[in-house]
Amino acid sequence: MSIRIGILGYGNLARGAESAIRQNSDVELAAVFTRRDPSGVQIKTAGVPVVHVDDLPAWKDKIDVLILGGGSATDLPEQTPKYAAMFNVVDSFDTHANIPSHFENVDKAAKAAGKVGIISIGWDPGMFSLFRMVSDAVLPEGKNYTFWGRGVSQGHSDAIRRIEGVADARQYTVPVDATVERVRGGETPELTARQMHTRECYVVAKEGADKAKIEQEIKTMPNYFADYDTTVHFISAEEMKQNHAGLPHGGFVLRSGVTGLEKEHKHIVEYSLKLDSNPEFTGSVLVAYARAAYRLSKEGASGCKTIFDIAPAYLSAKSGEELRHSLL
Amino acid sequence: MSIRIGILGYGNLARGAESAIRQNSDVELAAVFTRRDPSGVQIKTAGVPVVHVDDLPAWKDKIDVLILGGGSATDLPEQTPKYAAMFNVVDSFDTHANIPSHFENVDKAAKAAGKVGIISIGWDPGMFSLFRMVSDAVLPEGKNYTFWGRGVSQGHSDAIRRIEGVADARQYTVPVDATVERVRGGETPELTARQMHTRECYVVAKEGADKAKIEQEIKTMPNYFADYDTTVHFISAEEMKQNHAGLPHGGFVLRSGVTGLEKEHKHIVEYSLKLDSNPEFTGSVLVAYARAAYRLSKEGASGCKTIFDIAPAYLSAKSGEELRHSLL
Repeated sequence: MSIRIGILGYGNLARGAESAIRQNSDVELAAVFTRRDPSGVQIKTAGVPVVHVDDLPAWKDKIDVLILGGGSATDLPEQTPKYAAMFNVVDSFDTHANIPSHFENVDKAAKAAGKVGIISIGWDPGMFSLFRMVSDAVLPEGKNYTFWGRGVSQGHSDAIRRIEGVADARQYTVPVDATVERVRGGETPELTARQMHTRECYVVAKEGADKAKIEQEIKTMPNYFADYDTTVHFISAEEMKQNHAGLPHGGFVLRSGVTGLEKEHKHIVEYSLKLDSNPEFTGSVLVAYARAAYRLSKEGASGCKTIFDIAPAYLSAKSGEELRHSLL
Repeated sequence: MSIRIGILGYGNLARGAESAIRQNSDVELAAVFTRRDPSGVQIKTAGVPVVHVDDLPAWKDKIDVLILGGGSATDLPEQTPKYAAMFNVVDSFDTHANIPSHFENVDKAAKAAGKVGIISIGWDPGMFSLFRMVSDAVLPEGKNYTFWGRGVSQGHSDAIRRIEGVADARQYTVPVDATVERVRGGETPELTARQMHTRECYVVAKEGADKAKIEQEIKTMPNYFADYDTTVHFISAEEMKQNHAGLPHGGFVLRSGVTGLEKEHKHIVEYSLKLDSNPEFTGSVLVAYARAAYRLSKEGASGCKTIFDIAPAYLSAKSGEELRHSLL
């Protein structure tokens, strides 16, 4: 019998998970849950019901793991603990500063219900965290560097869209090549935000909007842009549609560490991702961890887990024997 | 109290582990065990005894984990099961084809004794296996590529040294750049050994040796060289000492996978290592997994484990809270 997965929400990430489920023969999509009118939500998997979120509790025995497709700002802080009281859940909570309190809330709910809640799954946090942590453990004397891009930051794109006069926007985060080369070459500099990334903005202005003012507002926006070298390109709606419709992303994590009695040997470890579709890759990671949540729960585990707490074998549909034979 | 580690053997790998122990404040070197006369073995850690291997059983309660520094050909198949019956052990068994039977032997011994035996730890098998497996689980439709080098292959260097007329030899395994670029660019070709790596040999010939014959013997040696483009450079003993004394290595694992309803999106995941000292990096990985063996054993686990079976958090000296705060 395959693992029955429910997905809450039907945005980019949820659709990425839906698509990933079809690539894994041991899992199946049981239902998609929505806050909207279900009759207005058209999903891509034939024969699978779209259900109003209010009816989720009735699915308690009909799904094995619930993937939460919501956002970290307001959805997940409320949804993950709430549904961890009924289901094994997996989320992609990515507000780094609030992970400790999110962990506590999910842990309490999941433990009380005897369920497993896996949080902060995706690529950063997620795969990048795994890599950072393992490299840190293996090379305890060293320094980590995380570069994102070249890729679309949805948070930064949204921030631009909220500016008056902006019809649409897409922001690319771009690593500074010269800095990357320094780190790959073995230097371990202290770096400012500006030295690590530049920000490239493509903006469709509304008719009659003051472009100079928009550009100024973008470039001086605190946290998002003020600390970076930012370029702003005004383009037409057609150009946006034609050249900037995708959601590519990626990046790399480097650890530069030393070993030896005199710390005379340098080691550079790098993990890199080049993703044509950020939400589909993230959805694929969520599905692998949904499999882990199901198995951990079957073994009697409960409570909140992160990517650090889960043995890699739980992610794979292959048996231990098969893994040792083909991938070790 | 720190984790007390014993090391069996005192070759390159064992010395790498010795050096790594000094970089981790929660572990300490308890003793080095040798088959030689202990009085002739000078170790680098002051105040730590060198003990004959025959006395190892007497250390049952004085060390928490035994790191096995021996080779895969003859040492480990015998030593790992033998000592897993007395100690938690970690080895770097790397004969891929024999991993399944080695696993069975260690599992039986470790389970009977209530000990934990972790096998095939290092970078390949080891870190590379971890990334191959995780990438395979996350992107089930795709292809893995493993490139080694540029670095010294000790097995290939030894094979050359066994040829008549050879005084010393060093063999570098070198990835073929053009092939690497194809795979990084998203192609997923079927590749022969020759297309992936070349082999560069530096040889010191004995006086009066027939160099042409040596070169011919190297280039036609089955398994080791016959399937590769191999170059042979004859150098002096001085040049060998000056330019080829180190044991650098490295390599990269790539997974090229697709997602999307029409499999229209490509993703390239890469894990790469550039290591100044292969044995010191490998020793560092062994020490991190020794920590894991100790903790798993404390929790009551027993039997044989591979890198796939161990949750990443066990590798780190940091607490779960600290890891979530600083590395997630």
